[in-house]
Amino acid sequence: MSDVREMEKSSRVVELLGRRQWAEVRREVEDWPAPDIGDLLLSLEKLDRIVLFRLLPLEQSAAVFAWLDPRHRDDLLLSLSDDETRQLLLHLKPDDRTDFLEELPGMAVQRMLNLLGPEDRREALDLLGYPEGSVGRLMTPDYVAVRSFWTIGRALEHIRAKGADSETINVIYVTDAPWKLLDAIELRRFMLGEPSEAVERIMDCEFVSISPYDDQEKAVQLIKRYDLYALPVADSRGILLGIVTFDDVMDVAEEEATEDFQKAAAVTPLKASYRDSGTLELFRRRIPWLLILVVLNLVSSGVIAAYQKTLALSITLIFFLPLLIDSGGNVGSQSATLVIRSLSIGEIAPRQWLRALAKEIGVGMLLGVAMGIAATGLGLVRGGWQIGLVVGLSMLSIVIVANIIGALLPLLLTKMRLDPATASSPLITTLIDSLGLVIYFSIAAWILHLF
Amino acid sequence: MSDVREMEKSSRVVELLGRRQWAEVRREVEDWPAPDIGDLLLSLEKLDRIVLFRLLPLEQSAAVFAWLDPRHRDDLLLSLSDDETRQLLLHLKPDDRTDFLEELPGMAVQRMLNLLGPEDRREALDLLGYPEGSVGRLMTPDYVAVRSFWTIGRALEHIRAKGADSETINVIYVTDAPWKLLDAIELRRFMLGEPSEAVERIMDCEFVSISPYDDQEKAVQLIKRYDLYALPVADSRGILLGIVTFDDVMDVAEEEATEDFQKAAAVTPLKASYRDSGTLELFRRRIPWLLILVVLNLVSSGVIAAYQKTLALSITLIFFLPLLIDSGGNVGSQSATLVIRSLSIGEIAPRQWLRALAKEIGVGMLLGVAMGIAATGLGLVRGGWQIGLVVGLSMLSIVIVANIIGALLPLLLTKMRLDPATASSPLITTLIDSLGLVIYFSIAAWILHLF
Repeated sequence: MSDVREMEKSSRVVELLGRRQWAEVRREVEDWPAPDIGDLLLSLEKLDRIVLFRLLPLEQSAAVFAWLDPRHRDDLLLSLSDDETRQLLLHLKPDDRTDFLEELPGMAVQRMLNLLGPEDRREALDLLGYPEGSVGRLMTPDYVAVRSFWTIGRALEHIRAKGADSETINVIYVTDAPWKLLDAIELRRFMLGEPSEAVERIMDCEFVSISPYDDQEKAVQLIKRYDLYALPVADSRGILLGIVTFDDVMDVAEEEATEDFQKAAAVTPLKASYRDSGTLELFRRRIPWLLILVVLNLVSSGVIAAYQKTLALSITLIFFLPLLIDSGGNVGSQSATLVIRSLSIGEIAPRQWLRALAKEIGVGMLLGVAMGIAATGLGLVRGGWQIGLVVGLSMLSIVIVANIIGALLPLLLTKMRLDPATASSPLITTLIDSLGLVIYFSIAAWILHLF
Repeated sequence: MSDVREMEKSSRVVELLGRRQWAEVRREVEDWPAPDIGDLLLSLEKLDRIVLFRLLPLEQSAAVFAWLDPRHRDDLLLSLSDDETRQLLLHLKPDDRTDFLEELPGMAVQRMLNLLGPEDRREALDLLGYPEGSVGRLMTPDYVAVRSFWTIGRALEHIRAKGADSETINVIYVTDAPWKLLDAIELRRFMLGEPSEAVERIMDCEFVSISPYDDQEKAVQLIKRYDLYALPVADSRGILLGIVTFDDVMDVAEEEATEDFQKAAAVTPLKASYRDSGTLELFRRRIPWLLILVVLNLVSSGVIAAYQKTLALSITLIFFLPLLIDSGGNVGSQSATLVIRSLSIGEIAPRQWLRALAKEIGVGMLLGVAMGIAATGLGLVRGGWQIGLVVGLSMLSIVIVANIIGALLPLLLTKMRLDPATASSPLITTLIDSLGLVIYFSIAAWILHLF
């Protein structure tokens, strides 16, 4: 849908709302996809927003509700009666409902669950039993399962009967009596099969499944690797618990990438989107690492204080301070970022750390020589051949050391079962600063005393 | 599939290869998904690799070939006869074939295209007419289309007949005689419909489509926003050209995120994966920005040289150099990263730059006050109240300025239709260094002369 067309349609709805023509409003938005109605809601004044939301048919209001940010959901909920809330909860898809309940404080969860019938409540609680960030939180029990001894014709009838309530019927699951998963078969293979034959005839029993306790990141990688539309979730005995669909996984992948970007810049991952985070929230997420880095920087001050006598040998040494510490930080950020990203998309396994390290030692030496030559030139021009030699040799050593630290730190963090993304560019820069200063002043003291 | 099971199966195949039991090898790998065979191939010696690849049935070898990296594809191709190559090309899915042909030098493309029949050749060339990074390069013409006046029963028959050759039948497209796209309908709605009714009865004519000239990034955002399984591609007159499926789009999203990570660390995006990039390739992608940053750093050296007299007022000023320039860089990296990521996932539009800027001015002031207080404390302890005042005020000003520059630079780049991700952390750090030094020394000169 083009932006212009969307804007025209939105302004028509606003006009109708102003004229209080409720039936026309309802007819107008009837066919809109949930995200478009969501955008329109957010652009409205609070009163109009509530009016429009209550005008939506239940199925549609549930879809829009699922799409909204937690903050806006709470605002809308406060405006609804208990019965309206119950209707809304019932019409949310199970995984969206879990997602919503999960974000409420404990007491509110209890109150909400009391509004649901026993069946739906059990479903929501079942889904809630799994740790945050686990596949269990992402799965939906709305899939279609058939038995291997059924005919394809009977299976198709069953699919037709159950299809309307299911998240997807693009993949059909074959289970046995105790609900053990036997196969995952694309719907098209049922449609192309002979209706009188048994389902068994189109089974190959080759399928990929995942545990509900696995990290959501693993679901992302499996769905990407095998180009799956949906991934079945099975427990340790192979019992089918639910499915995870590609659209939920794409959202997880995007969120994880956003978190990794924030971590790379030493920002504690934001709870909401950047757009919806207020000034105070942003401040709270950014200040902790900044202050930690200030404290770490005391080491650098200490190093300079300790080498005061060396600095006094030539004031020109100070000119190259920013160049040398910045270059070290830049090189370290590069290798850290490359290694962190490769680890996070599963391109290199932690056990391959020696290979990654060997590669980075090679790259670091090449970079060191190139940057060392450039630095020698600058040093020569500004301070003569002694300074040129000092700056060049320092650059060579700092770049090699920085490159190794940048690559090694995320690998070490992974080995220690910590998040490799903690090795942010600012942290690497600060660590390498102190080390770079020690290298620089040691080489300076040695060479300037030598001649 | 568990890693252990996969390893066991792999070692069985290796054993069979060693015993030259070709038929058994073939039977063993028959059911394996392409990525698993691909991994096995890569772990084999070159000769075994070629033998195993030639043993695969054509459909399977084409799928494995599509999964392999360009470098490994070339190796395998060299080992095939012209006829084998032709068979392989014919069995690749059209979009995989384009992807493959695109990476070959021009002459080789011609030779390969000559191996294809006129029909397939036209398909590959059609797909090749669109610019790199455009949706046209990603689309496949393998979809199923039906007419609105057909009965649902006839449509289902048509779907059954065409389904086997199509990329997906989960979404069916309704077109008119000149192939104009009228609707995109989920297969389940055909299955749940009454066979004797017209297709028209289940149409709502609400669908999202994209132009082949649009950026692939736009396809990612549409598929994510509307949770689509496949996105139809239509030209300016609405004629259906092909479809883009979610699995291709997930790959694009991952690649784009990886490129953004590399740019954020001032690395020119790698051509291949990190794992497959050699030492020289990595060096070539990393050294340009590092050298540009060395040159930019000359400004910092110049600033220090210009303020030599101020520095001579108190040697203690040097202690705080790394702290102040690092903190500026850290704050700038944070705001730049937050803004770049929000722009790239479409969370803030470039026209909302004033709102983003206003927010960052607020956050910057809070950060400045907090960091300023910490810096004043450190300055007091090391150099007395005058130095405390200088360091604290400098920190306050540097943090506010750095935060604004970090947020503004990516927004400005976007306004100038350049890539906002060019505002990498190392670039921001270097730019803020010089500015930070000027601020620091000016405040120092003013306060130290005042008292």
